[in-house]
Amino acid sequence: MYDVYGDINSGNCYKVKLLLGLLDIEHRWIHVNILQGESRTPSFLKLNPNGKIPVQVTPERRALFESNAILHYLAAGTTFLPTTDFESAEVLQWQFFEQYSHEPYIATSRYIIRYLNSPADRLGELEAKRAGGNAALKVMDEHLQERDYFVGDTYSVADISLYAYTHVAEEGGFLLSQYPNIRAWMKRIVEHPRHVTMSDFPPQS
Amino acid sequence: MYDVYGDINSGNCYKVKLLLGLLDIEHRWIHVNILQGESRTPSFLKLNPNGKIPVQVTPERRALFESNAILHYLAAGTTFLPTTDFESAEVLQWQFFEQYSHEPYIATSRYIIRYLNSPADRLGELEAKRAGGNAALKVMDEHLQERDYFVGDTYSVADISLYAYTHVAEEGGFLLSQYPNIRAWMKRIVEHPRHVTMSDFPPQS
Repeated sequence: MYDVYGDINSGNCYKVKLLLGLLDIEHRWIHVNILQGESRTPSFLKLNPNGKIPVQVTPERRALFESNAILHYLAAGTTFLPTTDFESAEVLQWQFFEQYSHEPYIATSRYIIRYLNSPADRLGELEAKRAGGNAALKVMDEHLQERDYFVGDTYSVADISLYAYTHVAEEGGFLLSQYPNIRAWMKRIVEHPRHVTMSDFPPQS
Repeated sequence: MYDVYGDINSGNCYKVKLLLGLLDIEHRWIHVNILQGESRTPSFLKLNPNGKIPVQVTPERRALFESNAILHYLAAGTTFLPTTDFESAEVLQWQFFEQYSHEPYIATSRYIIRYLNSPADRLGELEAKRAGGNAALKVMDEHLQERDYFVGDTYSVADISLYAYTHVAEEGGFLLSQYPNIRAWMKRIVEHPRHVTMSDFPPQS
């Protein structure tokens, strides 16, 4: 069985939980409290020397880190990964966009507000992230203008990666009301059979 | 023929140039000067709505952006991509590490120093990036302690992605002398047949 180390309220970890649910893959979820330093212990650093969640461990005890890499491993051979080289590269294109141009603005804003309770010394940083986050949402909204999903016409891991922090962007202070195509796309994601939400899981300490 | 839009002195663009050289793929390189706004023109935004270089355009005029996605497209079916699902995911793991935990510290420091000439209002940011950059280099150096390359025992696109900004990290103020395994690995990369360097290309305006 797979072991997954993470915090379900982290979008990066939720990506993995969502795909495990969609694919009905049995696994054990091990909660990691990053605010209490649990991702920096010697035993955790053996799994991920970079000290970040999520980490997945295979039944053969091989550890893999970086959420989007884990998604590719789990999705190999399923409908969540396209089969042509160009469309596979397009999936990666959107996942690298997510990690570089979306997550550092939207997820980090949410982290400062929700996990750290908006400390005074980080309000300037929060303000500075607003433009970048809205720029990413605008790119997404325009891409979805004539498409149901990010790549081809099917639900892929590119959508999972972008959905994870977009659907909680308002917790980071971003208003989704101005992005109608994103809202329609999020509705399609939620209506997918076997969809799981962050709140399907009880809060953990 | 492929068209590639980029600046050879950008590590993200150099990744693509290096793989094109290693694979001996004919292409046309179109220089883009980001400081003069050439990545924000209406015609460029049609290629990449996110306004970043590099962008690759196929002979069928399909555009692909994000350097690491382009590497995967070009490397499909070559020795630069492993064939097992786990090792493929490990390549991605290191590429996402590069974009999230390495590039924003090391490449951005180099950009502030080399492209912007260290303006006074960004010196605090430069200082703040030092710890993160050294943390990434430490993770790399330890990983290379008993390995020749990042994944398996062959040169893959994971190495290309990490090499691009690591080999010019000193231009960002990071001292590589304290990372002996990184230096040995860079020597292996340079000695590869068909290696191309940034300085193999004349400066462009």
